[in-house]
Amino acid sequence: MKTFGVALLGCGRMGIEHARTLLSIPNARVVAVADPFAPAREAAKTLTRAEFDFVNPEEAIDAPGVDAVLIVTPTATHAPLIEAAAKAGKAIFCEKPVALTLDRTQAALEVVRQTGVPFQIGFNRRFDPPYSKAKEKILAGELGEIRQFRAVGRDPAPPSLEYLAASGGQFIDQAVHDLDAARFLVGEVEEVMVWGTAHNPEIAALNDSDTITTMLRFKNGAVGVIENSRISSYGYDITTEIFGTHGKIVLDATPKTPMWQYGQTSAGTGYLSADHYHFFMDRFLEAYKLELQAFFKSLEHGTSPNPSADDAFESLRLGLAATRSYHEKRVVRLEEVV
Amino acid sequence: MKTFGVALLGCGRMGIEHARTLLSIPNARVVAVADPFAPAREAAKTLTRAEFDFVNPEEAIDAPGVDAVLIVTPTATHAPLIEAAAKAGKAIFCEKPVALTLDRTQAALEVVRQTGVPFQIGFNRRFDPPYSKAKEKILAGELGEIRQFRAVGRDPAPPSLEYLAASGGQFIDQAVHDLDAARFLVGEVEEVMVWGTAHNPEIAALNDSDTITTMLRFKNGAVGVIENSRISSYGYDITTEIFGTHGKIVLDATPKTPMWQYGQTSAGTGYLSADHYHFFMDRFLEAYKLELQAFFKSLEHGTSPNPSADDAFESLRLGLAATRSYHEKRVVRLEEVV
Amino acid sequence: MKTFGVALLGCGRMGIEHARTLLSIPNARVVAVADPFAPAREAAKTLTRAEFDFVNPEEAIDAPGVDAVLIVTPTATHAPLIEAAAKAGKAIFCEKPVALTLDRTQAALEVVRQTGVPFQIGFNRRFDPPYSKAKEKILAGELGEIRQFRAVGRDPAPPSLEYLAASGGQFIDQAVHDLDAARFLVGEVEEVMVWGTAHNPEIAALNDSDTITTMLRFKNGAVGVIENSRISSYGYDITTEIFGTHGKIVLDATPKTPMWQYGQTSAGTGYLSADHYHFFMDRFLEAYKLELQAFFKSLEHGTSPNPSADDAFESLRLGLAATRSYHEKRVVRLEEVV
Amino acid sequence: MKTFGVALLGCGRMGIEHARTLLSIPNARVVAVADPFAPAREAAKTLTRAEFDFVNPEEAIDAPGVDAVLIVTPTATHAPLIEAAAKAGKAIFCEKPVALTLDRTQAALEVVRQTGVPFQIGFNRRFDPPYSKAKEKILAGELGEIRQFRAVGRDPAPPSLEYLAASGGQFIDQAVHDLDAARFLVGEVEEVMVWGTAHNPEIAALNDSDTITTMLRFKNGAVGVIENSRISSYGYDITTEIFGTHGKIVLDATPKTPMWQYGQTSAGTGYLSADHYHFFMDRFLEAYKLELQAFFKSLEHGTSPNPSADDAFESLRLGLAATRSYHEKRVVRLEEVV
Repeated sequence: MKTFGVALLGCGRMGIEHARTLLSIPNARVVAVADPFAPAREAAKTLTRAEFDFVNPEEAIDAPGVDAVLIVTPTATHAPLIEAAAKAGKAIFCEKPVALTLDRTQAALEVVRQTGVPFQIGFNRRFDPPYSKAKEKILAGELGEIRQFRAVGRDPAPPSLEYLAASGGQFIDQAVHDLDAARFLVGEVEEVMVWGTAHNPEIAALNDSDTITTMLRFKNGAVGVIENSRISSYGYDITTEIFGTHGKIVLDATPKTPMWQYGQTSAGTGYLSADHYHFFMDRFLEAYKLELQAFFKSLEHGTSPNPSADDAFESLRLGLAATRSYHEKRVVRLEEVV
Repeated sequence: MKTFGVALLGCGRMGIEHARTLLSIPNARVVAVADPFAPAREAAKTLTRAEFDFVNPEEAIDAPGVDAVLIVTPTATHAPLIEAAAKAGKAIFCEKPVALTLDRTQAALEVVRQTGVPFQIGFNRRFDPPYSKAKEKILAGELGEIRQFRAVGRDPAPPSLEYLAASGGQFIDQAVHDLDAARFLVGEVEEVMVWGTAHNPEIAALNDSDTITTMLRFKNGAVGVIENSRISSYGYDITTEIFGTHGKIVLDATPKTPMWQYGQTSAGTGYLSADHYHFFMDRFLEAYKLELQAFFKSLEHGTSPNPSADDAFESLRLGLAATRSYHEKRVVRLEEVV
Repeated sequence: MKTFGVALLGCGRMGIEHARTLLSIPNARVVAVADPFAPAREAAKTLTRAEFDFVNPEEAIDAPGVDAVLIVTPTATHAPLIEAAAKAGKAIFCEKPVALTLDRTQAALEVVRQTGVPFQIGFNRRFDPPYSKAKEKILAGELGEIRQFRAVGRDPAPPSLEYLAASGGQFIDQAVHDLDAARFLVGEVEEVMVWGTAHNPEIAALNDSDTITTMLRFKNGAVGVIENSRISSYGYDITTEIFGTHGKIVLDATPKTPMWQYGQTSAGTGYLSADHYHFFMDRFLEAYKLELQAFFKSLEHGTSPNPSADDAFESLRLGLAATRSYHEKRVVRLEEVV
Repeated sequence: MKTFGVALLGCGRMGIEHARTLLSIPNARVVAVADPFAPAREAAKTLTRAEFDFVNPEEAIDAPGVDAVLIVTPTATHAPLIEAAAKAGKAIFCEKPVALTLDRTQAALEVVRQTGVPFQIGFNRRFDPPYSKAKEKILAGELGEIRQFRAVGRDPAPPSLEYLAASGGQFIDQAVHDLDAARFLVGEVEEVMVWGTAHNPEIAALNDSDTITTMLRFKNGAVGVIENSRISSYGYDITTEIFGTHGKIVLDATPKTPMWQYGQTSAGTGYLSADHYHFFMDRFLEAYKLELQAFFKSLEHGTSPNPSADDAFESLRLGLAATRSYHEKRVVRLEEVV
C-alpha cells in the first residue's frame, strides 16, 4: 500500500480535526503543516509528527514527499492554493467554497481540469451515513419518482460580523450545504425563489440575511424547500426529507446521546427528554472522517474523487442564484447565473 | 343541565361518525336525521334513536325539539342550509367549507351574523391535542417570536374524479386544513406563492393540481411553507413544525400503534418497524370528538364557538389566494382576494 | 339489531367512564343505575338517561328491561353480585378481581358456569391496540418461539392506606394486570419468584410491598420478568417486550401527546422533550372503550366473551402465587396454589 | 507532551481496531506488535508503522521504547502477560477477563498491585456516552435513590463451539458486560439468582446456557434484572434502564442509522422502518476509542485508570456467582464466591 504524503494547509480548528482523522488513515501521512499563526502550526506539527512546517501555505505544497494537499485555509486563499497545488501536480482536497464568485471558481477549476490532478470539495454531508444510505435507496428506486424535498439547516448562533462580512452571505456560507444535499439527493435545479429577511439589524446592515426559506424547482419536476436560520436556541438543527411516489425517507435530528430521562416538571407533570446536537462538529464528526477516508481511497485506487469540481461549481451557482432571488425578490433561473 | 336537540343533516360516513360522538355527549340528543339515501338515513336513525327522519335536510331543521343542526351534507348545500338554520334560530355546526366562493360564503355568514346564532366551522385539527397544546405554548410565549412554519399534508389516494370536479380544487379541499392550522398557530397571512403541478393527467385535465408547495408570508414577519400531495404510498402524512426565537415545536407523525417490531429482512439485516396512519379518520378521530364536545360546551355556557365564521371566511380566502397563485404563477397578496 | 338493557352497578369514576362508553355503543342502553352515594347515582342517571335508579345494586339487577350488568362496585361485593346476576340470567361484565381468594372466586364462577350466562372480566389491557396486535402477530408466528418476556408497571402514587388494606396487596391489585398480560401474550406459568420490599414504612406496616420484581417460568420454557412500583415520579409507566426466536415486539411508553418541544436548558444546552402519561385513565382510555364494545359484540353474536371466567381465576392464582413467593422468599409453583 | 510507546499484544480483529484508535491518539505510538499469525502481525505492523514485530507477545513487552502494553490476546494468556508486563514496569490495558477463575485473577492482579503499574480492564461500555452520562446524572442525584435496574444483552449469533468451550460460559463471556454495567451504575451486589436454559443442544452439551435471566439484589436495596441471549434474529440488542425515586433513565437501542423509511407493505398498509445495530463493533465503536483515550490520558496525568483491577475482580466474581446460581438453581450470595 502506497502512503500519500500530505501537506496540511491551515491548522485552525477544522485543520486540527482533519489532522486527527489523517492519523488514523493508514495510507496518509502528514509531512508538512502550514499556518501563519505559530501556536496553531506548532500544535499541528506535534500532533501529526510532520517533518516540516511553514508560515506560508504555498511553500508547504512543494515540501519533499508531498503528494496531496488539504486546503483548510481562509476562503480567499482557496483558489490561488488550488491553482498552485494543481500546477505542482498534487492531489487536492479543498474545503468549500473554492471562491465566492463563479468566475474565480471557474478559473481555479479550469487549472484542475487541465492538470488532471484529483480534486475533492469538502461537502462532508454527502458522507454522513444517513445521507449516503438515502442516496443508495433513491438510486435503487425505493422511493420511485421524487416529488418533494425539504430540508432544514439552522445554526446555534451566527458567526462574528467580521466573518460574515467576508463569507459571501448566508446562501453561500450556510445554505450551500443544504443546496448541495438537494442536488445530491434529487438532482439539478432549474429555478430558485427565496423569501426571507434579516431579523438581526447588524446582519441587515451587511445586506445579508439570517432567516431564509428557499424554494427549488428541480429539472425532474420535483419541488423542494429549504429553511435556514443563523440562530437556533436549541442548537444545530439539520433534517432532510425526500418524498417520492413509492415512499418517503426522513433524515432525522435524533438526540445527540441515545439516553432518555424521565422525570417530573416543577408543575408536577411527567416528561421525557434528551439532549440535542449543539453544532456541526458533534453532528457530522463521522462525516468529516469518512470524506477524508474516501479521498485517500480514491487516490489509492486511482478513481475520481467525489464530490467533484463540477459539484463545487454547480452548488455555488445554486447559492448565487438564491442570493440573487433574495435581493431581487423574484424567481431566478439557474441559467441566468453564469 | 339543558339537553340540546340536534338535527343531523347528512348521514354519510362523516355524519355517522358525528352521530356516534353525539351519543356520548351528555347534553346533546339527536332528535332528527336527514339524508336522501334511505339506508344511510335509517342506519343513522337506529343508531341515534332519533324520533324523526327526513329525506330533505331543510325539513329536519324545523322538526320539533331541534335546537342545533349539524351540517354534514355535500358542499353545495352548506350555504343554503346555514341560511335556513340561522333564520330558524338554530345553533349551527357546519363541515368546511361554507361554499367554494367568497361571495357565497360571505352571504351565508352574513345571515349568521344578523341572526346571532352560534356557529362553528369544522376545522377539526384545532382540537387535536398536539395542535391545541402547541397553541397554548405559543400563546404562553414559550417559542418567543415565530420565525418559520412548515406543514405537510398528504392523503393516501385522491378522491374520485367526480368528487374532485366539485371540490373547489386541491387548495380548498385538501390544503385548507393546513392553511387553517397555519393561521391558528402563527397568525394571518399577507402573501402566498405556490409551486406545484398535476402529475396525474386526469387531475390535470380538471385544471386541478395534485402536488403543491405553498409559501406563506405572515403579517408578523414569519415565513411558512406547506407541502401537499393527493397521493402517498405510506398513508396519511400530517406533520407541522413551528420555529421561534426560543425554541421549536414539532407535531409529529408517530406510529399509529405504539408497537415496535424488530426482525430480520430477507437480506439478513436487522430492522425495527411500526405501522402508520392510513387516513384522517384514524389520525384525527379524537379531534372529531373534541370539536363536537367543544361546540356543545359553548352552547351550554353561552360562549361563542370556535373556529368561527371569520375563520371559515379567512381560511377560504387563503385557499383561494393560493389557488390563484398556482394558476397565475405569481405571488398573490391576500388583499387581492375579495 | 337487538338492544341490550344494562344495569350499571357502581357509579364512581370508573362507572361513569363506562357509562360514557355505553352511550356510544349502539346495541347497549342503560336502563338502571345503582350506587349508595346519591350524587354519584344521580349524575349517572342524568348522563345515561336511565329509567331507574337504586341505592342497592342487587335491586338494579332485577329492574325491568335489564339484560346485562356492569359490576363496577367495591371488590368485596363483586362475588355476591356475580352470583345474583348469574342466577337472574343476566350477562355479566365485572371489573377485576372477582374476589381476593381463590375459594370465593371459584364459588362465584361456578355459579356463572352452571347458569351459562356470558361473563367477561375487566382485564382491559388485552384490548389496548398494541397488546391485541402483538397477540395477533404472536399467534401468526411472527416471533417464532417465545424465549423471554418483560414488563414494567409503575403507578404515579400509591392509593390510600385504607384502600391498600382492603386491596389484596400489590400483586392482586396492581401486578395482576401485568401477570394477565404475560398469560395473554406468552401462556400459562409454572413457577414464580419475587424479590421486592416496601420502601414506604406505612405500606410495610400493612405487610404489603411497594417495589417488586417478579420472575415467571412459563410452561413453554420462556422466562419472564415484571417490575412493579407503587410510585413513579414521572407518571404511569407501562411497557412490555416479547422476545422470540424470530424477532421482538416492544409495546412502548410513547409520549402522551405526540408533540416534541425543543429548547434550551438553563445550563445553555439544547434539549427535546415531550409529556408523559399520568395514569391508567389517560393511557388505557381506548382499551376501556374497546373492552365494552367487545362485550356487547359478543352478546350480539352469541359468542363467549373474553377474557373469561378462567382468565379471572388463573390470573388471580398467579397473583396469589407471587404474593406467597414474596412473603415466603422462595420459588412457588402454581400448582401449590389451589 | 510525552509520547508513550506501546506494544500491541494480539493483532486479531480487536487488536487491529485498537491499533486504528492508537493512530489518532497523539501521545501514543505503537513501537511493537506481536502475534503468532504472520499475516495479522504484518498487517498490524504496516498499519501502525511499528518498528518491531514478534511472534511471541512476551518478547514485545521488552522491546526498546515500550512504556505500555495492550493485551488483546486469547483469554488464557492474559494473566501471564499481565504478570510479565507488571514485572517489567509497563502500564497495562487488558481486555476482559483477566482469567476465568478468581484465584488466577487474584494472583495476576496481586502482581499489578505490588509493582504499582497503571492497569485498566477493557469494560468498554463504561465509556459509551449514554452510559457515562447516566453515571454522571446518577452521581448528581438526578434519579434520587435507585430502586430498580434492568438490562438486556443479546448477541446476533453464538460464537463457535470451540470458542464457547474455552469462554468460561455465558455469564463470564457475555453477561459480564451487563453485570459490570450494573455495578457501574447502581453499586455492589449482594445476591444473585438465575433462571435460564440452553435451547441449543450443542451449547447444552457444553453444560453452558444460551438464554438467561439474572436477578440481582444490590447492597443499597435496589433489585435488578438482566436478560441475555446468545442469539437474536434482529441483531445486537443492548438496553439499560435505571429507575429511581426521582426519575428514570433509559439507554436505548436507537436505529443504527438515523434514517426512517416510510413505505407500503405487500399487504397494502403503511409502515416506517429503520435499520438496527448488528453487533458490538458497530454499537460500541466510539466506546472502544474512548476507553483507550482515557487510558492514555491517565498515563499522561499520572492518575489511576478506570475500570480498575478491583473492577476486573468484582465483575468476574459476580459472573461466577451467577454461573453457580444457574447450575445449582438457587440464590447465591456474593460472599460465597471467594
